[in-house]
Formats: sequence, C-alpha cells, structure tokens
Amino acid sequence: MDLTLRSLESMFEDQRESFFERYFQLLRFPSVSTEPHYAADVERCSHWVAEFLQSAGFTVERWTGAGHPIVFASWAGAGPAAKTALFYGHYDVQPVDPLELWQSPPFEPEIRAGEVYARGAQDNKGQLFYTMSALCSILKHRGALPMNVKMIIEGEEESSSAALKKMLPEKRDQVRADYLAVVDVGMKSLARPWVGVGVRGIAAFELVLHGSDHDLHSGMVGGIAYNPNRALVELLAKAVDENGRVTIPGFYDGIEELPPADRAQLCMGTTADESLKLLGVAPFGGESGLSIEERVWLRPTFEINGLNGGYTGDGFKTVIPARASAKISCRLVPGQDPIRIQELVCKFLEAHCPKSMTIEVRKLGSGSALRTHPNAPIVKAAVAAFSDVAGTSCGVALEGGSIPISLDLSEASGGEIVFFGYGLGDDQIHAPNEHFGVDRMRRGFLTVGRFLAHLAGSA
Amino acid sequence: MDLTLRSLESMFEDQRESFFERYFQLLRFPSVSTEPHYAADVERCSHWVAEFLQSAGFTVERWTGAGHPIVFASWAGAGPAAKTALFYGHYDVQPVDPLELWQSPPFEPEIRAGEVYARGAQDNKGQLFYTMSALCSILKHRGALPMNVKMIIEGEEESSSAALKKMLPEKRDQVRADYLAVVDVGMKSLARPWVGVGVRGIAAFELVLHGSDHDLHSGMVGGIAYNPNRALVELLAKAVDENGRVTIPGFYDGIEELPPADRAQLCMGTTADESLKLLGVAPFGGESGLSIEERVWLRPTFEINGLNGGYTGDGFKTVIPARASAKISCRLVPGQDPIRIQELVCKFLEAHCPKSMTIEVRKLGSGSALRTHPNAPIVKAAVAAFSDVAGTSCGVALEGGSIPISLDLSEASGGEIVFFGYGLGDDQIHAPNEHFGVDRMRRGFLTVGRFLAHLAGSA
Repeated sequence: MDLTLRSLESMFEDQRESFFERYFQLLRFPSVSTEPHYAADVERCSHWVAEFLQSAGFTVERWTGAGHPIVFASWAGAGPAAKTALFYGHYDVQPVDPLELWQSPPFEPEIRAGEVYARGAQDNKGQLFYTMSALCSILKHRGALPMNVKMIIEGEEESSSAALKKMLPEKRDQVRADYLAVVDVGMKSLARPWVGVGVRGIAAFELVLHGSDHDLHSGMVGGIAYNPNRALVELLAKAVDENGRVTIPGFYDGIEELPPADRAQLCMGTTADESLKLLGVAPFGGESGLSIEERVWLRPTFEINGLNGGYTGDGFKTVIPARASAKISCRLVPGQDPIRIQELVCKFLEAHCPKSMTIEVRKLGSGSALRTHPNAPIVKAAVAAFSDVAGTSCGVALEGGSIPISLDLSEASGGEIVFFGYGLGDDQIHAPNEHFGVDRMRRGFLTVGRFLAHLAGSA
Repeated sequence: MDLTLRSLESMFEDQRESFFERYFQLLRFPSVSTEPHYAADVERCSHWVAEFLQSAGFTVERWTGAGHPIVFASWAGAGPAAKTALFYGHYDVQPVDPLELWQSPPFEPEIRAGEVYARGAQDNKGQLFYTMSALCSILKHRGALPMNVKMIIEGEEESSSAALKKMLPEKRDQVRADYLAVVDVGMKSLARPWVGVGVRGIAAFELVLHGSDHDLHSGMVGGIAYNPNRALVELLAKAVDENGRVTIPGFYDGIEELPPADRAQLCMGTTADESLKLLGVAPFGGESGLSIEERVWLRPTFEINGLNGGYTGDGFKTVIPARASAKISCRLVPGQDPIRIQELVCKFLEAHCPKSMTIEVRKLGSGSALRTHPNAPIVKAAVAAFSDVAGTSCGVALEGGSIPISLDLSEASGGEIVFFGYGLGDDQIHAPNEHFGVDRMRRGFLTVGRFLAHLAGSA
C-alpha cells in the first residue's frame, strides 16, 4: 500500500478545502462536557463524529447510557492475523470562561495569521480531526488500511472520563489492541519534535469550609466570628511549604525514580528563558532546586485551581461569608496511587480544618500516571513518523498533563501506549483564545498516515 | 408641646396603615449604591425621600453632582435661640447576592411572623423611615417641633459616603447643629436596650495578584508556574498570626485604652452561648484571650471579605489562573488613623508579595473610629427615650460596625454624637433575608419622639 510521505501529501492537498470545512463544523459544537446545559450539544457532536467515520467505511457504535456518548469505530479488513492499532481522542472541550477575554467567539472558528482560533481548536478537536481524517482518507482512497484500526472517541475527557471508565471493563474484547496511540498532547517546538512516553496522573478535589449558616456583618461580629475566607487561606497555606514542597504526610512515598538510562533519552534542558518565552511563565513555582522537566514530568504537585468566598463584585461589601471554597488538583507521577493520594489529601485537610469550621472535601476525579519504555515498537514507529514529516530527528519526552483515562485504556486494550500530537506551549488550551496551526493540521494528517505505515511494517 | 409617650402612641396608631404602606414603598426601590446599573433607582429613591419630608413641612434640598444625591431637610421654626438636632440616615442599600438564598424577592417586602423581609428592611430604610415619620408626624399634628431639626439622608453609605464626604466641608454652615443622632445601629436585645457612644472605623482594600498574562494549564506548567491562587493564600495567611493578632508592623500602635470608669459603664459580658444564639457565630475568631466586647468594640480587625481566583463553576477545570484577587477591610478603633493604616497594609502586602507576581493594591474607602463620653447630654436624652419606650433601664454601648461618615458629620456639624437604633444581631443585614420587626418600627417612631422631647427639655 502506497503510504509514502509524497502520496499522503497529495492525498491531503486534493481535499484541503473540505478538510478545513469539516474541521470547522466540528469546532462549532459547544461540546462542553462539564456544564450540564451543553448536554444536547455534546450529543449532537457525538453524532457528527460517528457519521464522519461511518461514511468512510468504519463500523461505528455509539456507547450511551453511562454519561456523554462514546464513539467506537473499527475496521478489521486486514484480517485476524494482522495487528491492531487503537487511537484515542475526545470530542468534548473545556469551559470557555472568562468569555470577555476571547478575541473571537469560542465556537465560531476564525483563522488569524495561520492559526485557527476556537475552543477545542487544539484540545482535542484539532488533533482528533487530523487523526480521523487521515484514517478515513487512506481507507477511502486506498480501499483499505495497512493494519486493523480501532478508534475510541469520548465526550468526557475534560470531566474525568467517567462514562468511558465505567464502560471499558465490559468492552475489553472489543477494544483489545496491540498498540494504543493517545493523540492528545504536544511538543516543545516543531523544530525539535518529540513523542510522549508517559503522562502524570491526577487527583482532584472540591473543598468547602462552612462557618455560620448565613453571611455575617464584618462590623458586628468582626473580631469574634472566624471568617471562612481566613480559614481557607490558613488551611491551604499549610499544604505547601516555602520550598514548594507538599507537606501532606506520605504524599511523596513510593515515587518511582527514573533509571539514568531512560532519563538520558528524555528531551530535557529547558531554560528559564525558554520557559518564559514558550509558556509565558517564569519558573518560580514548584519545588526549588530541581530542573524544569523534573518539576513538570517527574514530580507531583498540589495546585489550587479555584478560590471563591464572599463578595467579589464591583466595589466592596463588608461581609464575613457563610462559606468559602476551593478547587484543588494534584498531578501525580508513577508510584503514587491516586486513591491513596485522595485519602491523604482529605485526611490532611480535615485534620487541619480550623476550629469552628465545618469542612467538606469532595473527591472529583482521579487517574494514575503512566510510562512506556522509550524502546518499545510503538514508540519507534511514532518517532519515525514525526522524523519523516519534520525532516529531522525526533526525541522522546514525558508529559506534565494528565489523561486520566489512559491507564484504563492501556489496561483494557492490552496495547503498548504512546502519546503524541502537535500541541505547542502557547496554544492557550483550557484558556481564552485557544488556537492551533493550519499547517500543524496538515502535519498531523501526514504523521498519522506515516505512523500507521511504520507500525504495519509497510513504510 | 404634648410629646408624652401616650400621645405619641395615639399619633402612631392613627396612621398605622399608611405608615407601613409608605415604608414598603421605600423598600421597593432597589437603591443599591455600589452597583452602577442601579443608579436610576437610587435617583428615584432620593426623590421619594425628598418629597416625603417636603410634604410634611420641611425645607428640602437635594444635593447632587458629587455622586448619588443627598437629601438635606431642615425646620428652623423654633427660632435662632433654640438648639438644633441633626439626624443622619441613608436610603441606599447593600447588594443582594447570593439572590438564590432569599426566601422572598429582596425588593418586594413581605411580612412573615411579625418581621418585614426586604433588603434595607432594617439597614437603613427601616430605621430611616421611623425617624422621618416621627419627625414629620409631630410637625404635622403639633404644627411645630420642640426644637430646630435637620436631617441628612445620603445615598452612598454602603459605598463609603464619597459624595457626602466631598460636600460636607462646603455645607458646614447649613449642617451646623448642637446634637447629632446617627440612627443606623442596634442593640443586643429589646429587653435590655442600649444606645451607642462610638463606632469602629474602617479601611478597605482590593488586592490583585497577577501571574502570567493568560490562564495556564495545570498539567503543562504545574510545578514551574507560580499559581496566583497559591500566592494569594500565602500572602493573606501571613497577615494574621495563630492567635488572631494582625502581624502588620505598626497596626496596633497608638490605640487609645478606654479609662476604667467608662469601661465600667459599657454593657459588657456577652457569653459564648449568647454569641452563638444572637449572632449565629461561635466566638472563635479574633484575638485570643479577650472578651467578646473587647474584640468587637475595642480592637481592630483584618478581614478577608472576598476571595476570587481561577475556576469556580460546576465540576473542575485544571487551570492555573492568570490572576487572583481579594477584598479586604480593617475595622479600626480610636487612635488608629485610617490613612496611616492604609499605608501600613499596602506596604505589608507589597513587601510580602511572592516572587514573580505583580501586585496591585487599591485603597477602596476609609473612615475613623469615634467615641462620645457616656455622660454627654445627648447620650442622656437618648438613654431616657429608650427607657421610656422599653419601660426598663437603658445602657450605653459601643458599636463594632463602622459608619465612615460619622466623623465627617461630627466635625462639620460640631454636634455631640450618639448612635442608636433598633437593629438586632439576627436581622441579617448585608445578607440574604434581611428583616426588621413590625413592632420595632413602632418603638422606633415613639423613641425618636421621646428623644426629641428630652433633648428639647420638654419631656
């Protein structure tokens, strides 16, 4: 089967216009999975994805009933002796607030200076679309794929993948695969591409401190009422010390050290200047005395994602609020069991809850960290594909983010896992003005094709 | 002039129906001074107040141009030799959020179990209305007042009285008075009334910490980005120590100790049980080792009125926000200069701002604390009036809240000041479901009449 770079390039150019039309259609669905009032849009989006794959020749199922629908597609035309590759992506997106900071509406994609601006432009609709499109195009134009292919495309990645987690155990036979590619990550720069061999895990929480049963007047009782805002500040300040180290007992226990040989293969050495330039952030957070990659890839965190209490509107209001709350998440690394970390965090917060406050800690979601060996066949195929498209060498890296579902997918499919994608540090995913490059969509298409060729041994 | 309790009682009963009708009219104006979109309602409310006083025989002016209108009313019929009493109140109210916690709409007054529920039912429209109504009724039914009377009714008390503060210096001749009654406070219980001889001052702030110029992904940069939420928590935790003592250098300098004789006159001795019952709050806040009254009346505070940063909606969002903010206010006591305290607080916050954050501290408003001697004639007249109406003895007290304008009023008018009113600890002022008693409206009417009689020496 002709899957040379050149033939994939003509395949892409021949359909460039409809490719971007379809991509924009996908971006227009406000498929925000965490906000219940978008449920109908999430549903419509899942139908669109299913139809796209079905019309190209995939056998498609929509798994419903456990949450937002999961689209499962498969093509087994290579026969039972051939190996199977499973691709994972998601069609749901993050919330869009603060809306006023968007330069163009988040669900009306717009191209400015070669970048597509929209919520999900990168995470994950962009990367999902070039993957689906490459697989469908090869199937349509070559009449077959070089190996068996499956796809799982879920609608709850941004809210802990609850439905898929619940369904995977009973779908083990269907999702079984030799290789598993999670196309939902990025690299430091296009000039020096990398593929990912691991992600951090996560454990998320909501913390609420209740004081009085109603808001109080800060004059009438200021001096005797314990202010929940103060209690929250005192409690959260205790969780991390002045060196950026998490103080929760047992938090760092059992963390797997990376063997020196593996460590040497990783693309490390980001400087503080690069951090500032690529991420818009000076590296002053986290544990002191460690390199940037160590802190983002190899060490866990305790992060306050949201703070809320009392009056936050215009002017001021002399209130001692009835309650104050925080959203918290910990990034985890191999060796940390998310369930155990959840227990440790809850226990710590409850133990340090200031006197007279009622504390409520809700566990929101969790997932383990995951690492594949850099010399595994799937890693080699991905590295080769990225090298082909970039015309340069490709390294391996870890990923600081979490894809909570990746461990479940890896266990259910039994496949070797790799993480790749064309995300870059300043794509503003999870933030206003998310964007993704027009040319990266093209590269993604080519890379998926070449990856499949290398994996099937038909490169 | 017949201003006996009995004659005032018939005067009230004869007009009971129209009294509550008018009171409800006043409550229906959503005159929230801190939120710009209510400006037209604030304006309409000021006209209603002005017309109410004018139709009873007062000479009325509306002072405009410096902010929300101020209503100034005067009656000088007692002649230049007679003394003048100046009453102060305000027609603006606090914001109403969280709206969903109100059992009936905040601007549609409703009587339940003898209490009127509405924003401003007590603070200050209720207390303002019984005051205005008593003065107007005496003037209409007796044809005169027993002494000269002035009223200043402003529309910005809940947002620092900026307009009145600005105008008072140029209105000194008009507002000159021998006595000044601020009818905007309360007492511990109706069974043991008190009048106030002092208020705490205030200094308010908005604090914003800026990290990156956009929201960041807590996976991609968690471990290197300094999270503004964490920076805010660390910074604010430093301002108060584990004994509830404010750590800001110089904060307690110069505080005037109350002489033991004056201290003995104060209605002290609230127990922890009473605090819990009357205020819905166990006395675990503030400085340890001090009595409840000391903490609320004689000591300053550092209170976090609002906290806001990152994602606070449903579910969670793995964000490291670009900024986090807090609203802060300090209650002050005699001897603390608000301007100096503002400088000290700003200096402290700026000095402890975590590395890599940009800090912005805005001064929002301030006012000094104030105390009158418990044996001053105006205090005696007020104590006598409350005794008459309650049929029991009346004490003196301080007030933990602040009426930032009271010092300006006291200086501009040159009058002896007293603070009184029928507020109770569980009226939920500044909170959802604010309410005020039907019978307290009656008592207020009678008390204002008797106060005037005692003050004029015609009791």
